Amino acid sequence: MSSPVDYLEDFRTGHTYDLGTFSLSQDEIIEFATRFDPQPFHIDPAAAARSQYGGIIASGWHTASAAMRLMVDNLIPLESSLGSPGIDRLRWPAPVRPDVTYDVRYTVNSVTESKSKPDRGAVNSTTDVVDPDGNLVMSFTGVGFYRKRPVG
Amino acid sequence: MSSPVDYLEDFRTGHTYDLGTFSLSQDEIIEFATRFDPQPFHIDPAAAARSQYGGIIASGWHTASAAMRLMVDNLIPLESSLGSPGIDRLRWPAPVRPDVTYDVRYTVNSVTESKSKPDRGAVNSTTDVVDPDGNLVMSFTGVGFYRKRPVG
Repeated sequence: MSSPVDYLEDFRTGHTYDLGTFSLSQDEIIEFATRFDPQPFHIDPAAAARSQYGGIIASGWHTASAAMRLMVDNLIPLESSLGSPGIDRLRWPAPVRPDVTYDVRYTVNSVTESKSKPDRGAVNSTTDVVDPDGNLVMSFTGVGFYRKRPVG
Repeated sequence: MSSPVDYLEDFRTGHTYDLGTFSLSQDEIIEFATRFDPQPFHIDPAAAARSQYGGIIASGWHTASAAMRLMVDNLIPLESSLGSPGIDRLRWPAPVRPDVTYDVRYTVNSVTESKSKPDRGAVNSTTDVVDPDGNLVMSFTGVGFYRKRPVG
């Protein structure tokens, strides 16, 4: 998949971009969490089986990172991306489990030109991660800064 | 460092817990971002040097994950932690650069007992990551669910 957007002006307010799918193996989940979030329900299959989750679930930071990868691969234009100041309302409403294929969707909430820097602007977007039954497992709303199309 | 809290009741509203420090090497930053956030200013030293950042900076998800590791190692009580429903107001006000030592601090905003489940409750907290000059480089406010101390 190549990105459908190159510059700020190409983000279409109200449009939802389908960014493809990801799946995390139990080994990947345990490896990530051993490094960054070593809680028993992320790294210890026996403890996870006894927990409220009934088995290994991914660290929420792993899920966010996996969704980010699809945003970079399939949407964020590398030539014009200027980074992100932050995220609002990151939610993990349901666990992410091994070997399940999740869909990632990106919706443009608004596109705003910078008042102080005429060559750039901000995109406010919501990234949703959805399981095969259509249940939302992660959602976050954030801002990205992008250059405008060069003039002339 | 061992955790100063075991159960919900041990989180002290208004208290700031010092969770220690982390530092990310350029190799670690590039490795994480190659997997999850392969934008040029995270993975390509030459492109990063030409960017507004003047050099490689960490993916914001890497910074969040590094802070999470200190939260798990030095604060979150593994026996009583029940996971997190989400994060509000995640901010990356300044870049995180290789081989800089960052302090991580965790402040308890509120502790709320569950109305529906008498054995547990929620902690609302803010995690701040600060550079050696005292500048904030990341902050997020989130919720964690914890069991209450068993009765009897």
